[in-house]
Amino acid sequence: MQAVWLEEQRLRLREDIPTPKRPDEALIRVRLAGICGTDLELRRGYYPYTGIPGHEFVGEVVAAPEEGWVGKRVVGEINAVCGVCEQCREGRPTHCENRTVLGIVNRDGVFAEYTTLPLANLHPVPDSVPDEAAVFTEPLAAALEIQQQVHIRPTDRVLLIGAGRLGQLIAQTLALTGCDLHVVARHKRQKELLTARGIRLIAEDEVQPKRWDVVVEATGSPAGFDLARRAIRPRGVLVMKSTYKGEVTVNFSALVVDEVTIVGSRCGPFAPALRLLESRRVDPTPLIEARYPLAQALEAFERATQRGTLKVLIEP
Amino acid sequence: MQAVWLEEQRLRLREDIPTPKRPDEALIRVRLAGICGTDLELRRGYYPYTGIPGHEFVGEVVAAPEEGWVGKRVVGEINAVCGVCEQCREGRPTHCENRTVLGIVNRDGVFAEYTTLPLANLHPVPDSVPDEAAVFTEPLAAALEIQQQVHIRPTDRVLLIGAGRLGQLIAQTLALTGCDLHVVARHKRQKELLTARGIRLIAEDEVQPKRWDVVVEATGSPAGFDLARRAIRPRGVLVMKSTYKGEVTVNFSALVVDEVTIVGSRCGPFAPALRLLESRRVDPTPLIEARYPLAQALEAFERATQRGTLKVLIEP
Repeated sequence: MQAVWLEEQRLRLREDIPTPKRPDEALIRVRLAGICGTDLELRRGYYPYTGIPGHEFVGEVVAAPEEGWVGKRVVGEINAVCGVCEQCREGRPTHCENRTVLGIVNRDGVFAEYTTLPLANLHPVPDSVPDEAAVFTEPLAAALEIQQQVHIRPTDRVLLIGAGRLGQLIAQTLALTGCDLHVVARHKRQKELLTARGIRLIAEDEVQPKRWDVVVEATGSPAGFDLARRAIRPRGVLVMKSTYKGEVTVNFSALVVDEVTIVGSRCGPFAPALRLLESRRVDPTPLIEARYPLAQALEAFERATQRGTLKVLIEP
Repeated sequence: MQAVWLEEQRLRLREDIPTPKRPDEALIRVRLAGICGTDLELRRGYYPYTGIPGHEFVGEVVAAPEEGWVGKRVVGEINAVCGVCEQCREGRPTHCENRTVLGIVNRDGVFAEYTTLPLANLHPVPDSVPDEAAVFTEPLAAALEIQQQVHIRPTDRVLLIGAGRLGQLIAQTLALTGCDLHVVARHKRQKELLTARGIRLIAEDEVQPKRWDVVVEATGSPAGFDLARRAIRPRGVLVMKSTYKGEVTVNFSALVVDEVTIVGSRCGPFAPALRLLESRRVDPTPLIEARYPLAQALEAFERATQRGTLKVLIEP
């Protein structure tokens, strides 16, 4: 089959990849896949990965150990877990010690004609949710992980720093809480999308120091942390949503004196993401900037790498 | 009056300081004062402070705007607050935007014959609590701040890194929760005190990675953070109790992937600290290593600076 291949920080298109055979898992024909910041970071070497990248997708089950799944349109959770390690047993399966991660850790991903996942990872997509929305289920779940971890009160002043691919989805979900949300956005298109939904913008130099109850850092770059640190109030919660290569220098004494809480936040729950897509309370489709056939996946990556680009989709 | 004076990172003993006069506050004769890690850091320039240092004390009220306080033996909260700023109004008075802090920020401290504090800061000391225990109220309250901020479950595996002045008090308070507590201690005397209370030690190289539900970093040095980071389990809580000059380099991506929470922790509640001293569930007195008259305060500081030294007291 045709697939994108990542090896030693180089991407290429291959035609010689065998269609995957895992009788214990669902074989899924990929209908639509999305390029995520993590895919770009993987190529930069954030984590050493060799194989087919890609983890945001909607597809159709074409073979499965349980007949009932065949023909279903599905999205899939990206962590394939063991179920027996301490993390799994204590209810933290996304932190499974033996996990493989779709297109990220020891498991071929979705920039391909076919992919596989355990049945336990799959969620049927409601008929009313088009592929163009369903393909956002994974990053929307990641946005909801913030509220899974941190209690956002309707009275909270919340500052979101970064309005890119993930930031847009975070903005939409936080706005649903009724909180006093302001977003630091850099690019024109990002700002337009937020304004169109009635979400308020704030210029970086207008962010009041030590004022915000919750700050979400979603810029994908270490510079966002400095602003977040200045903005958070004493005993406030700073949510880190970005993964990026490299380290950040932190003055921990200041964090201790202000009793700040920092929360790392990664993969989230699919079921509420699908509910919000079905009810259209979240609409990710305006984020789509371009759509490429799989044969032009390398061009798709080039496009996604351009600054300020929102979602680029690949259609196998 | 006689007092210790800190100026440009130099300590000296002065005889020419006027007895403080603040009719709106209590005038307190200092009976006993303790040297804290923060005092040593202040001298190293962690924060620019000129004046009388010292904030751990027990004293006797000799004058007060309310007659009933005169003659009372008291301990005192160190943050003198405005009561009207947003932090005060929202119930975070220790983060008052206009606060002065005893012996730390714009307020002369307790390494002196007399000090002053607002009446609202004072707590009478129960008769059964001797000065040698009462002088630990402030750091004991800081230890309890951990449990004020973080829910420690009786089933939690808790790792405490650092068993110095503050670490010993943290160990004693955490042990009261029934949690599975282990302490990384460096010095012989530190270990003996813990073992004498039935608190288990663990060698640094035996600390299992990614295993601990809660890790408390109380070493007072950036090196402790690295061990804490390795030890914490996914979605665990890492409590930062140290303030020190300088910055720490952090790999935030790893914190995000493991969804770790970091909580800065500073001043705590005095009332439960006094209850635990009164009931003798906490006994800080074995921490006392030496006691110097105020006239020998500079020797007291030299002693406190020696590695592994626990509590050094100054008696005006």
